[in-house]
Amino acid sequence: MMRNQSARAELIMVGTEMLALGARDTNSDILKKDLAAIGYEVVALSVVVDELEVLSGAVRTALSRSQLTLISGGLGPTRDDRTRAAIAAALGVPLRSDPSAWRSIRRWYDERGRKPGPGARRQSQVPRGAESLDNPVGSAPGIWWQRRGSMLAAIPGVPWEFERMWTEQVLPRVPKIAAGSALASFRVGGLTESYVDSRLVDLYRRPLLDVTVLAKTDAIEIHLRGKKTDRRAAAAVMRAAVYVRRRLGRAIFAEGEETLEQVVGDRLRERCETLAVAESCTGGELGARLTRVPGSSEYFQGGIIAYSDEVKRRLLQVPAATLRRHGAVSEPVARALAEGARRRMKCDWGLAITGVAGPGGGTAAKPVGRVFLGLAGTGRRTSSRRLQLSGSRELIRQRCTAAALLWLYSILRAGGRCR
Amino acid sequence: MMRNQSARAELIMVGTEMLALGARDTNSDILKKDLAAIGYEVVALSVVVDELEVLSGAVRTALSRSQLTLISGGLGPTRDDRTRAAIAAALGVPLRSDPSAWRSIRRWYDERGRKPGPGARRQSQVPRGAESLDNPVGSAPGIWWQRRGSMLAAIPGVPWEFERMWTEQVLPRVPKIAAGSALASFRVGGLTESYVDSRLVDLYRRPLLDVTVLAKTDAIEIHLRGKKTDRRAAAAVMRAAVYVRRRLGRAIFAEGEETLEQVVGDRLRERCETLAVAESCTGGELGARLTRVPGSSEYFQGGIIAYSDEVKRRLLQVPAATLRRHGAVSEPVARALAEGARRRMKCDWGLAITGVAGPGGGTAAKPVGRVFLGLAGTGRRTSSRRLQLSGSRELIRQRCTAAALLWLYSILRAGGRCR
Repeated sequence: MMRNQSARAELIMVGTEMLALGARDTNSDILKKDLAAIGYEVVALSVVVDELEVLSGAVRTALSRSQLTLISGGLGPTRDDRTRAAIAAALGVPLRSDPSAWRSIRRWYDERGRKPGPGARRQSQVPRGAESLDNPVGSAPGIWWQRRGSMLAAIPGVPWEFERMWTEQVLPRVPKIAAGSALASFRVGGLTESYVDSRLVDLYRRPLLDVTVLAKTDAIEIHLRGKKTDRRAAAAVMRAAVYVRRRLGRAIFAEGEETLEQVVGDRLRERCETLAVAESCTGGELGARLTRVPGSSEYFQGGIIAYSDEVKRRLLQVPAATLRRHGAVSEPVARALAEGARRRMKCDWGLAITGVAGPGGGTAAKPVGRVFLGLAGTGRRTSSRRLQLSGSRELIRQRCTAAALLWLYSILRAGGRCR
Repeated sequence: MMRNQSARAELIMVGTEMLALGARDTNSDILKKDLAAIGYEVVALSVVVDELEVLSGAVRTALSRSQLTLISGGLGPTRDDRTRAAIAAALGVPLRSDPSAWRSIRRWYDERGRKPGPGARRQSQVPRGAESLDNPVGSAPGIWWQRRGSMLAAIPGVPWEFERMWTEQVLPRVPKIAAGSALASFRVGGLTESYVDSRLVDLYRRPLLDVTVLAKTDAIEIHLRGKKTDRRAAAAVMRAAVYVRRRLGRAIFAEGEETLEQVVGDRLRERCETLAVAESCTGGELGARLTRVPGSSEYFQGGIIAYSDEVKRRLLQVPAATLRRHGAVSEPVARALAEGARRRMKCDWGLAITGVAGPGGGTAAKPVGRVFLGLAGTGRRTSSRRLQLSGSRELIRQRCTAAALLWLYSILRAGGRCR
């Protein structure tokens, strides 16, 4: 398969803290977004320790296969800042001091009434053939190198220095390839990844198209992407989108950036209906997800987090006998919770979740991951569903929240508009 | 500085979606934590596209310099799953079908009353000399390969499959090198990053110590780490931890892995007290966070998501006149919500949040980010707090949830044990 080799980019983020301490790398998010907009495909993102060999190896690999190599971090004054030396080693050239960089560094120290130390002197060095990039908000200069269609930039990793130098000094030097490749995305509920894949098998043969099928907590995601940035690839994406809609039909609940909570909200708004929730094991996750959508107060009235049995009885009027006979994690209680939420908050719909999220609390009859959903609606018989989920406590909570939303969505979609 | 070459690990996360679509890689967080605990240093984390050459190049590099190579993703049944082929290419051996893997896959399909397709057949393949790892929660088997002190594992990327297979099948095969380098972590509330940094400036000069100060949504995090894995470095970390405690005192709310919701829960448990919440703009986030802690039902009774004014009035008995006079986002309403939650759910404490999360709904008097917290407690005058937060809707919701928990914690800490 041919890829457009001239539009490949590679990102190298330097810093032990992102590997040993779990610090988040946020600089790469900015790069991914900006590079996509000018038509570059990021083929690899590496987070590496500040060790000369590892770092120069990463730079060498990137230079060998991508047109654009972008490095963040490792340019500071301390001895564990080895990006300058690593680039020189990868390019096979010596480091030399850049007089203009040295002037800027001295000015930066002068303005603060301080003297540059030996570390600052090292910061003025660039590999032979490269140029130094001025840092308007810190002491560390960046590096820019270019040769025969290959480009490399190194930018200090401190987020505000990084963002400013990338935007003002590096991005303008990178030739814009195109407006970015065409994209189409779909989310599908209630099917397995391999079933979805088998339905779409024809798409894999189409030459201008990249197809990705992913299993997420919520749904199976399908992403279509043009392999080039021209009109033919865009047309291939559009044709493939039509094909996906035909092959998967009503299993598709969202397209593009839409989320499950958004499409549930859109259907409720169209139908002029309102919703309330009752949550036990999810402790508020379902309400939190529904209210992530701006404007959700139009249809979402509220909810009751019925964590204790007493709250289930007193605030949601679940009969004590039902709790005693079936236990809090049961279909009758799920139905009673849904009805209680609907009645207490005077809504069209009441949606409830009760289950064993674990890691403790499971029994042979009701193991960890056993969850019941309840749904009560005006003029509709209250129903319940049983789920058996696997994973950690957090995952079980997320998955049953998603299952509840998907169930409600499938029922809302069937109905009409405002009465 | 000498590094222990036998304790190096390298992580390769496969998936175009993490590069082109901005999806978050969470599997590597689990690996970083577990590997640190058994003494492995992660020297590189690469996120790569599902392209055979890029992927096999990454595997080859990792094998050449690290003892342990861990790969997540690219093992599915679809044609863009190329991890099996890439490992075989990097090892220079052919792929062959593993009969036991094929049996497991067929069983998995049988149990679901379905027929395995050609993609499933491909999933039974492993590179010659490698073994297949059973997947108890999905159809894709993993891969384990070991030779002369070099180890490699490939695990399906779906988070719940990944977590389970890593913990149960890969981690037990990896020899434990050491207890890892000494670590100490602290979380601090109510102070700025630069203030914390200025209080700890002395630590930066200590030769055996790595110090990282990070600003998070919840808190400022301080991480201390020994630069070596010997006893002198461990002693330096211990001394620095004592210094941090002395310099920051009561601003420290958590040490090690503790979260804010855990320390709040611990204090409630110690005091034998119970908590209920009332949430408006956070829509359930506060309850969801409190119940992330296993066993939180000991002290958390439940909550009311009072998204509409009617729910505030009817379920929490906020007087209609108060809502009319002050508006739903106001100190009197925050106090009334806290009292309503406490009274309705018969708890020792009622904690409430009401605010403007945005992006719409702000006014000159109550701009986006204006949030009021309310706290009601037995034998204590009900109080409120005003916040003005910045950021996106999601960030404002997270930050006011954290502020509410931190406020409650600071008050709980002052009091005693069980009455």
